[in-house]
Amino acid sequence: MGAFSAVSFENERLILIDQRKIPQEETYFYCDTMDEVIFAIKDMVVRGAPAIGAAAAYGVVLGIRELKDENFETLKGKMMDVINNIKIKLDDARPTAVNLMWATQRMLQHARKIEANTFEEFYMSMLDEADSIHREDAAANKAMAEFGNALIQHGECILTHCNTGALATVDYGTALGIIREAHKTGKNIHVYADETRPRLQGAKLTAWELVRENIPSTLIPDSVAATLIRDGKIDRIFVGADRVASNGDSANKIGTFMLSALAKIYNVPFYIAAPISTVDFEMLDGSFIEIEERSREEVTHINGVQVAPSEINVYNPAFDVTPAENITAIVTEKGIAYPPFKENLIRLRDLK
Amino acid sequence: MGAFSAVSFENERLILIDQRKIPQEETYFYCDTMDEVIFAIKDMVVRGAPAIGAAAAYGVVLGIRELKDENFETLKGKMMDVINNIKIKLDDARPTAVNLMWATQRMLQHARKIEANTFEEFYMSMLDEADSIHREDAAANKAMAEFGNALIQHGECILTHCNTGALATVDYGTALGIIREAHKTGKNIHVYADETRPRLQGAKLTAWELVRENIPSTLIPDSVAATLIRDGKIDRIFVGADRVASNGDSANKIGTFMLSALAKIYNVPFYIAAPISTVDFEMLDGSFIEIEERSREEVTHINGVQVAPSEINVYNPAFDVTPAENITAIVTEKGIAYPPFKENLIRLRDLK
Repeated sequence: MGAFSAVSFENERLILIDQRKIPQEETYFYCDTMDEVIFAIKDMVVRGAPAIGAAAAYGVVLGIRELKDENFETLKGKMMDVINNIKIKLDDARPTAVNLMWATQRMLQHARKIEANTFEEFYMSMLDEADSIHREDAAANKAMAEFGNALIQHGECILTHCNTGALATVDYGTALGIIREAHKTGKNIHVYADETRPRLQGAKLTAWELVRENIPSTLIPDSVAATLIRDGKIDRIFVGADRVASNGDSANKIGTFMLSALAKIYNVPFYIAAPISTVDFEMLDGSFIEIEERSREEVTHINGVQVAPSEINVYNPAFDVTPAENITAIVTEKGIAYPPFKENLIRLRDLK
Repeated sequence: MGAFSAVSFENERLILIDQRKIPQEETYFYCDTMDEVIFAIKDMVVRGAPAIGAAAAYGVVLGIRELKDENFETLKGKMMDVINNIKIKLDDARPTAVNLMWATQRMLQHARKIEANTFEEFYMSMLDEADSIHREDAAANKAMAEFGNALIQHGECILTHCNTGALATVDYGTALGIIREAHKTGKNIHVYADETRPRLQGAKLTAWELVRENIPSTLIPDSVAATLIRDGKIDRIFVGADRVASNGDSANKIGTFMLSALAKIYNVPFYIAAPISTVDFEMLDGSFIEIEERSREEVTHINGVQVAPSEINVYNPAFDVTPAENITAIVTEKGIAYPPFKENLIRLRDLK
């Protein structure tokens, strides 16, 4: 799709577009070690649930590669412990991202099944599995985009929050992938993008993607959305999710709940776009979602410039939880789930 | 009250605390001419409806002073035209601020009544009137603070938006004046302050005032408020207003409507704090309020650093309108108006 790839792996290194530098520069961040992958996830060089998942899978691959000089027979005996430790370290980089844990778990399960005689065989099989995660994610986004696009009418105004585009995923995007598909299929849409404080992913990343693809669009401060929704300027809202509980409660970037509450009052359809891997079927509801608190400096400083007095307390949660009752439907790569979400998400998951 | 004064007049110059520099520096901006006052209002050196009103009154004084070398008898004959032109120029600096027009109108009406034999007599009478506006505003804020404080219970959490403090007014503040009074009277309150994008008046100014007075408080990105309101963390919301229509619909800083809508869903009392001069009794309802659109650079650049791509469209309204039905009460210097606002605001206005 785009002329850029957020996550790729070449010559034993993970290559990430450095999302901290956009929109000023398009530069790449190279990870030769697992620790560099952990740093990249923590520092948001890479962000967006699916992109983090793919990056973490390659993080496992790099973690294994660091063991290449060990005796393979000895290594084999303790391999599952070793990979489990790698998984724990990677998972810890972003505790709210269920895709991360899903990807490292899949790598662990794959490792258990490998019958390899040499380190190289083992390593190549793990790399193949990471490549599969990468490839499947791109295909899933394309499928999700097509399902979501079917909901959009010609000429509609779509509101989105944070960045859920090709930058957030391996390719195409989730919520922004749907928007991209609607634009590509000539639906003549207009997009409103929330700037998304405090990290401004909407201003920095989504606006960059929209401009890059010539999708008609307008950037707004987060608190402008409420008035647009009230005044009938928004036809549909599409956002992503970092984690969806089995009942449909969805954790997403701070500010999402506010949009969903306004959408509910003013009868604007509100959609979550997320791969089925984002759903935690073990989790009863959103009250069990751990909300990551990020640093005070994200609020008190912008691009290194102080905007608030040093002594002020700050509350800076990364996410909020949108209750299932505020969600019109959840768009996945396997189809669209409407309420009741519990049954319908399971149905989609089990689709062949 | 505070050790600083947002608006003062000494030795034929208007002295404004430069609110563009806070919280980094406490510096003052000096206006020797009316054009400098217009610049200060436009560029938000001075901001907040009551502070703008007082500054504009002194702007009229400085506009007159520039005529001191004209023949007074000739000047007298065209004085009302001259002052009317001054008023038009000043009013144009911030079209949404009804206090500005109220203050310049009061100066015009005062001028009409002056019987002066010399320029100096005329000038001094106009200066006296501007001083009265200044003094009355300080007294009004103190009265408003006492009325508003009566609504607050011990130990409550109060949410506020933008800056309505001693920086926004001649002294003490409107919504933040009430908060200041509650703190001073030992009510052990905790304040949540929205950062208030795009200009960050909450982060820059309100947080600065709260820290300066040791009021326990927490700064939050604007979109965090919705979750706090839902989760029962906020007992009351106090905000200011730039303009109140006769039915109670209130224009205030962008983001206010969003808070009021959430407050209504979750039954959190939502108060407007504004002097009675903010009420436009000629205006039927909020649909007649002109919403000022501000520059795209306020959103795309923060402290001179670009945060969004140059090519993106931006929608940056300065205000939104909160409908009367979302407002629990309007606190004025003459008492508290509850619904129906139309009758009760008139009753307060006509109180002796």
